[in-house]
Amino acid sequence: MKVDIALIHYPVLNRNGETIISAVTNLDIHDIARACCTYGVGNYFIVTPSKEQQSLVKELISHWTSGPGGLTNPDRKAALQLVKLADSLRDVRLQLGDPAVYATTATYTSNCLEWLELRKKIEIGEEDNILLVFGTASGLAKSVLMESNRTLCPISGPTSYNHLSVRSAVAIGLDRLLGNWRI
Amino acid sequence: MKVDIALIHYPVLNRNGETIISAVTNLDIHDIARACCTYGVGNYFIVTPSKEQQSLVKELISHWTSGPGGLTNPDRKAALQLVKLADSLRDVRLQLGDPAVYATTATYTSNCLEWLELRKKIEIGEEDNILLVFGTASGLAKSVLMESNRTLCPISGPTSYNHLSVRSAVAIGLDRLLGNWRI
Repeated sequence: MKVDIALIHYPVLNRNGETIISAVTNLDIHDIARACCTYGVGNYFIVTPSKEQQSLVKELISHWTSGPGGLTNPDRKAALQLVKLADSLRDVRLQLGDPAVYATTATYTSNCLEWLELRKKIEIGEEDNILLVFGTASGLAKSVLMESNRTLCPISGPTSYNHLSVRSAVAIGLDRLLGNWRI
Repeated sequence: MKVDIALIHYPVLNRNGETIISAVTNLDIHDIARACCTYGVGNYFIVTPSKEQQSLVKELISHWTSGPGGLTNPDRKAALQLVKLADSLRDVRLQLGDPAVYATTATYTSNCLEWLELRKKIEIGEEDNILLVFGTASGLAKSVLMESNRTLCPISGPTSYNHLSVRSAVAIGLDRLLGNWRI
């Protein structure tokens, strides 16, 4: 079983619903890499077409994977080694060899798949090569949802508040799919 | 049913197992407040005995709750309104009126309680006033565990890596207890 993650910085939406390119943030890299390492995710793709942003990410990662950061904190090195770069979702798909692509959203759609249904599919081996796609800013542009095989239902609790950070959403999503809990 | 959260900055451990006071970080406030708002948590206590740190937190919160931040981003205002300050865990307990205190740790202990067992207790009404206690830095000092009624089992996935950020751990813990998933 193989689960990978893509964090999309373009195309994503701003609060007005316009398509933008968002900036990569340091803590998205660290927090999500640590969650990926915890849940056995194979690759964590930072997706941005900006060469400047890619270059910044490379510099940051190398501090931890081959520079002084990894010497003082080997646990962080293990996590940051999962981080890869990609220009686009299409690029990620090509690198991974046609995974089943599951997009995420904070808005309900009638045909969304419940996370625990996907957990079951993984457990019975019905899905064995999955790419989970998360959006930064105010979420994935419609074209990304169109390019995905399926959209997962929004993560929520007992309230209608749907403004989790993407870092929290990734952590919760991975735990719903791969956490060490049993009923 | 009432669930509150305390994020402890003293006493916590550093990587060498020494007791320290950690600095409050901006993103711990925001990410965890947003998760609390999502899952219907009543209060999110930032626990530090440092008056300077408390004053910094107050300034930051007021930017979002009564200042310009809340005008441009009312969703963030709703989340940040849950943030409270406390000098110590004892102070939190006094403010809440003797809640059942559940500490969290990344290390297994033989008598830890599984998160889904606590979810069941909440569902059947066996627990109705819960305080979840999370540690910053390398986790809660032993005295905090001793002061708690019970320790919850570590959150993990299929690997032995146990270095989630506290932001991720809170998000996952709340989803395990209060998430909108059903088997």
